[in-house]
Amino acid sequence: MGRWEPDARGRLAQAALALYAERGFETTTVAEIAERAGLTERTFFRHFTDKREVLFAGADALQTLIVGAVANAPDGLAPIDAAAAGLEAAGAHFFVDAQREMSRRRQAAIAANPELQERELTKLAALSAAIADALRRRGCPDLAAALTADIAIAVFKTAFEHWIDEANHDDFAVLVHDSLDELKAVTAA
Amino acid sequence: MGRWEPDARGRLAQAALALYAERGFETTTVAEIAERAGLTERTFFRHFTDKREVLFAGADALQTLIVGAVANAPDGLAPIDAAAAGLEAAGAHFFVDAQREMSRRRQAAIAANPELQERELTKLAALSAAIADALRRRGCPDLAAALTADIAIAVFKTAFEHWIDEANHDDFAVLVHDSLDELKAVTAA
Repeated sequence: MGRWEPDARGRLAQAALALYAERGFETTTVAEIAERAGLTERTFFRHFTDKREVLFAGADALQTLIVGAVANAPDGLAPIDAAAAGLEAAGAHFFVDAQREMSRRRQAAIAANPELQERELTKLAALSAAIADALRRRGCPDLAAALTADIAIAVFKTAFEHWIDEANHDDFAVLVHDSLDELKAVTAA
Repeated sequence: MGRWEPDARGRLAQAALALYAERGFETTTVAEIAERAGLTERTFFRHFTDKREVLFAGADALQTLIVGAVANAPDGLAPIDAAAAGLEAAGAHFFVDAQREMSRRRQAAIAANPELQERELTKLAALSAAIADALRRRGCPDLAAALTADIAIAVFKTAFEHWIDEANHDDFAVLVHDSLDELKAVTAA
């Protein structure tokens, strides 16, 4: 096996998620992941700290992208629409058709494990706090920014649940807008 | 010290929160909490599993009360208003003036400790899931129920932040409605 492995990282992530789906996150070992990917454990550890990292490696990049899009949304856009622009940007980069099966498996692995659920909640809370900060820098008052960011996370989760649904064929951005419409419907007086 | 201690539980909780504020959650011991309350460690362990339990002992009762109020909200009420009825009921029982300083200290202790934050997030996620279930039993569709429950948690957090603010003199129920109004304002087209 050569030192240069085309898309070793992607192959390792794919192998890991397949194994988590087949035999569960807890019982899967790094050795098994590497073997399934046709790579060595050493290669695994060049890309990921541990088997949990496979599931959360994208979180920082996702947050950076969303916060950047919120910051760069047109002036004068309402806070919720600036936050939605961030979610759409995330969709265009992370939630594309080719990633759907991987995202579905990731979600299933997390749903099956309380420790992973806690970590996911912590990541989402950090994302909400980062969106709130970006909204404050756009001039949104303190608590309104926190509320809007939490609502954006709720919209994000709803869009994501629709997106990983087998029956869905819509783009993530469309689902973000559907979820926003649903939000407006449920909050209308 | 007699076996019967008037409001031993309340005194222990108060002593614990005062110590967490003074010297931090991590460094406070159960022995110190018991001593401050003028009680024994044995009495502490009759009321709480450990020093963390002091902070989260009320979560189950809070959830039961909110879910019950959502279930018993008048027929025909919109899901978000049924959820708000749950939050108001919580306010009437848990978020009363006499509890404000304790709630403020509890929040400060949690904010200062990542492990406690994780636990708080897990409790709030469980509360959201329970509210969503209660809304589904009222006939609300699956994902709309999850979205509405997450929004209710965001409203709850905003109301709570206002409520523990030193400058605030409004009742929790008033702040729930203010937060709902703010929600409607930020989501209005």
